[in-house]
Amino acid sequence: MKPIILDGTVVSNEMKANLKSRVKLLKQRDVVPCLATILVGDNPASETYVRMKGKACEEIGIKSVRVHLPIELTTNELINSIERLNADPSIHGILLQHPVPEHINERQAFEAINTEKDVDGVTSSGYGQTAFGIGHFPSCTPSAIIKILNYYNIPIKGKHAVVVGRSPILGKPVSALLLNEDATVTTCHSKTENLAEILKMGDIVIGAVGRPEFIQGDWLKKGVIVLDAGYNKGNIGDVDYKSCYGIASAITPVPGGVGPVTIATLLEHTVLSAENL
Amino acid sequence: MKPIILDGTVVSNEMKANLKSRVKLLKQRDVVPCLATILVGDNPASETYVRMKGKACEEIGIKSVRVHLPIELTTNELINSIERLNADPSIHGILLQHPVPEHINERQAFEAINTEKDVDGVTSSGYGQTAFGIGHFPSCTPSAIIKILNYYNIPIKGKHAVVVGRSPILGKPVSALLLNEDATVTTCHSKTENLAEILKMGDIVIGAVGRPEFIQGDWLKKGVIVLDAGYNKGNIGDVDYKSCYGIASAITPVPGGVGPVTIATLLEHTVLSAENL
Repeated sequence: MKPIILDGTVVSNEMKANLKSRVKLLKQRDVVPCLATILVGDNPASETYVRMKGKACEEIGIKSVRVHLPIELTTNELINSIERLNADPSIHGILLQHPVPEHINERQAFEAINTEKDVDGVTSSGYGQTAFGIGHFPSCTPSAIIKILNYYNIPIKGKHAVVVGRSPILGKPVSALLLNEDATVTTCHSKTENLAEILKMGDIVIGAVGRPEFIQGDWLKKGVIVLDAGYNKGNIGDVDYKSCYGIASAITPVPGGVGPVTIATLLEHTVLSAENL
Repeated sequence: MKPIILDGTVVSNEMKANLKSRVKLLKQRDVVPCLATILVGDNPASETYVRMKGKACEEIGIKSVRVHLPIELTTNELINSIERLNADPSIHGILLQHPVPEHINERQAFEAINTEKDVDGVTSSGYGQTAFGIGHFPSCTPSAIIKILNYYNIPIKGKHAVVVGRSPILGKPVSALLLNEDATVTTCHSKTENLAEILKMGDIVIGAVGRPEFIQGDWLKKGVIVLDAGYNKGNIGDVDYKSCYGIASAITPVPGGVGPVTIATLLEHTVLSAENL
């Protein structure tokens, strides 16, 4: 039997339609939601991402401010830029495009973003709030994964979710969100022994490892739900789609799966931040 | 074969000896580490806990300030008290004894504690820092569990740790700390289906569920390491010690296991906070 293809475009289009009308209502109150994106240096992939996010903002009426900083920037200079945006009441969300150049302390820069404007969900304080169920802006890709599961009425409660990856903006927050949805959650990573044995137990498997086509179909249980949060070079996911296709009962494609919902979630957070003012 | 008994008293005594000399050094610099404990109402168990912690402070030369507030207190009044302690430079750590009376919003009160003085590790910001490996004060019981494992040279890296419980100060932070120690971590809870099957995979099992003698020996793998973080009425743990004794290769007793190390960790955090000034 063919799996259900979890189509992120459908989910994101519905979200965007809803956001468009919320932005209209805000504008009636003279509030224009505004996302500031910070790009350090000239990494072409990062430039593309920032441009894409800017275009998505435009599409639904969110103003976007691009802050493009030179590659020679120090960590302190970057933090100063972030603090100016923190203090600016016309900015509702701040996104620091990563990766930043290697000489910059990325974590320190992320931590400088006000939790209230951390619409991308990168700060440790935002993560803590997410994990404790009191936050507004979970990291966008993890949030997108939950949205897709909910959209397709896939039960999470009591299910065993296995997350492959433990990065601060992907593996850790998606584990936290799934736990808050009452899944039993196993977080795996590069040091995990017998990964295939553990994956075999997963009712829901999340690829969040950053290794192209890493997760193999024969590691999975028949009927598993597979969500691929990978974004490797050349638009390749973390899941070997071909070998998983015949095993899964539902699967996200790459592209067109988690990606578009991630961007829509970033927009949603920016609108939410403007609404909360 | 009998299991190794993981003796928390040995670990905590060693910690206290070390802390005593650090407190002496601080006093030479005219710094007296000081822990403020807040008790709301007259719950006799809570009074005992607060007294115990005060005595432990005394033992190693930490000053303790007890703030005893009436049961009729509102959440806002409690937060005002906390903010006075936040602003007081002579206070290095703040501990709000829980549970607080039901009419108080406990989470809101916890969140009012400055992360820098959150030596008990109850704030979401402190939790986020712990999970991202950039924090100073992980929640004390989870931190005690790691200390015991390290003291007894029990390898964590690559092992499968199964945590039963997901509370903000116990299950979640111990899962985070074990993950940072390179364990593969599964977090289980009341909605977990087939708990016994999942526990059977655990190389390390943590009882953090708050149900007396809940975890049974026949749910566990032969040779498992068992740590009991439970503190139920009458000094009873979450682990059924009798049935687990013959299965485990190492086990913490209750009392005398995780408990004393938890208190020593609270003292350690208070000293660390004073040293950081």
